[in-house]
Amino acid sequence: MSGIAFAGARLNRADDLRRDPARLETLMDWRARLLKLDGLDPALDRDGGLEWGTLADADPSSELVFLGLLGERACFAEVAPRLIGSVAPPNPALWRALATMEHEDLAIYGAARSLVDWHARHRFCARCGQATKLSKGGWQRDCASCGAEHFPRVDPVTIMLVEHDDMLLLGRQPRFPPRRFSALAGFVEPGESVEEAVRREVFEEAGVVVREVGYVASQPWPFPSQLMIGCHAMAEDTALNVDRTELEEARWFSRDEVAQAMQGGEDGAFIAPPPHAVAHHLLKWWLER
Amino acid sequence: MSGIAFAGARLNRADDLRRDPARLETLMDWRARLLKLDGLDPALDRDGGLEWGTLADADPSSELVFLGLLGERACFAEVAPRLIGSVAPPNPALWRALATMEHEDLAIYGAARSLVDWHARHRFCARCGQATKLSKGGWQRDCASCGAEHFPRVDPVTIMLVEHDDMLLLGRQPRFPPRRFSALAGFVEPGESVEEAVRREVFEEAGVVVREVGYVASQPWPFPSQLMIGCHAMAEDTALNVDRTELEEARWFSRDEVAQAMQGGEDGAFIAPPPHAVAHHLLKWWLER
Repeated sequence: MSGIAFAGARLNRADDLRRDPARLETLMDWRARLLKLDGLDPALDRDGGLEWGTLADADPSSELVFLGLLGERACFAEVAPRLIGSVAPPNPALWRALATMEHEDLAIYGAARSLVDWHARHRFCARCGQATKLSKGGWQRDCASCGAEHFPRVDPVTIMLVEHDDMLLLGRQPRFPPRRFSALAGFVEPGESVEEAVRREVFEEAGVVVREVGYVASQPWPFPSQLMIGCHAMAEDTALNVDRTELEEARWFSRDEVAQAMQGGEDGAFIAPPPHAVAHHLLKWWLER
Repeated sequence: MSGIAFAGARLNRADDLRRDPARLETLMDWRARLLKLDGLDPALDRDGGLEWGTLADADPSSELVFLGLLGERACFAEVAPRLIGSVAPPNPALWRALATMEHEDLAIYGAARSLVDWHARHRFCARCGQATKLSKGGWQRDCASCGAEHFPRVDPVTIMLVEHDDMLLLGRQPRFPPRRFSALAGFVEPGESVEEAVRREVFEEAGVVVREVGYVASQPWPFPSQLMIGCHAMAEDTALNVDRTELEEARWFSRDEVAQAMQGGEDGAFIAPPPHAVAHHLLKWWLER
């Protein structure tokens, strides 16, 4: 599936350079680029593109994360001291900025945000409690005290269209903007396949039994670092038993209602998820199929 | 796809009980079951099934993890003090035991092993370095010092059959038993979709460019806690450039060679991955398709 936001970066991740501190060091010259961030949000130039500086712009006490190569030039992001321990949630201005950013900029920004946020919130060894140090160009943190190696976290999440009789089951989380409905979703737990996680989540959140779970598309989601695994499943019936601790509401929508919501506008049965969410692409896929 | 090991547990994870310490407490009576472990390995009864005891068998200083309900009975596993900080790798006896265990036992054991191992190696808050405490029946750890909540880790890994001209590209990791070849695999990184991770890993490990990446099946893998995402992709050509830091060898195998290896026996072109590995099921799927 094309057009999925936060995927499709042109950056070459060049993992061989991560393992070679001497070669990486030689790339950290005046040509290297530093991605400018405003906290964890993107800093945008006057054309709405990502703003880049040089390594001279970094706070000398920052850690630097190697994002990859754009052509010959090494790209970095900065784990600035002011971000350490920060847990600031995404804000409304960020969502507006995402809506205007270019596809490739979104992908570079998403990976950078996930990595910088991980370093900011993972300063200590979970095994022994001592301070850790960045290594492998920022793709690892090492504990000198107990020898543990820690890797950036990616949390797999299933997100699923549940279908019955040409209708879709969508839900509202309390934090959603008014009238927004989207696909049900939930984290994959230890000991579950993707298909089991889909069945468990739909039953837990909506009381619906599903079968014929199929994969549709995936998306990296940088708030903070999920792998969204988009699926489709058929419901046994339409009776709902909504878990109000998870969802404010869950409802079945007809194909016409979904089509109208996806055309935008405010007067449909609901407001669809925005194009940077994989749920938007799942709905588009379902309508076109 | 049916028959995938470590999936298919009959346990009801009952997440509503995790959030309700009072109700969970009432289930922790003489009827509750304790999964016996030998270190992190399964303790098996005389029939080769998982061995269960009662909560009275647990070390009083152990933490208890709620695995779920089997019928009316709550099932737990024990994070024993001797496991704390342990990083013992799986041993050959474990692989032999897995080969004889029932499908449902494997699934219960896999989830338990991942959870117990996570608690044993995540005693401290990665954000502030202070000690954390088990909460939500063992599906969370809380830091009283900074308020951070930590969740059991699940690391998504892509594992892929790469095809060209009715041949498959398989690789050998240095740690494999002699003559074993299996599907290439690698961790999904922050900022990547499943499809991007497949393309990057195959290019990094074998120098092969792939297209038409498709999802096939998934599997939870409890060593320590991966979500294996099985895929298929078409290679542009057969020229290889193998990364020797990752793979000892990579080779193309014909359909006949794959079929012969999957029939078992020692005289084929290679030895196929065992039935508890998702790669085994991917090869079977490819042969039958």
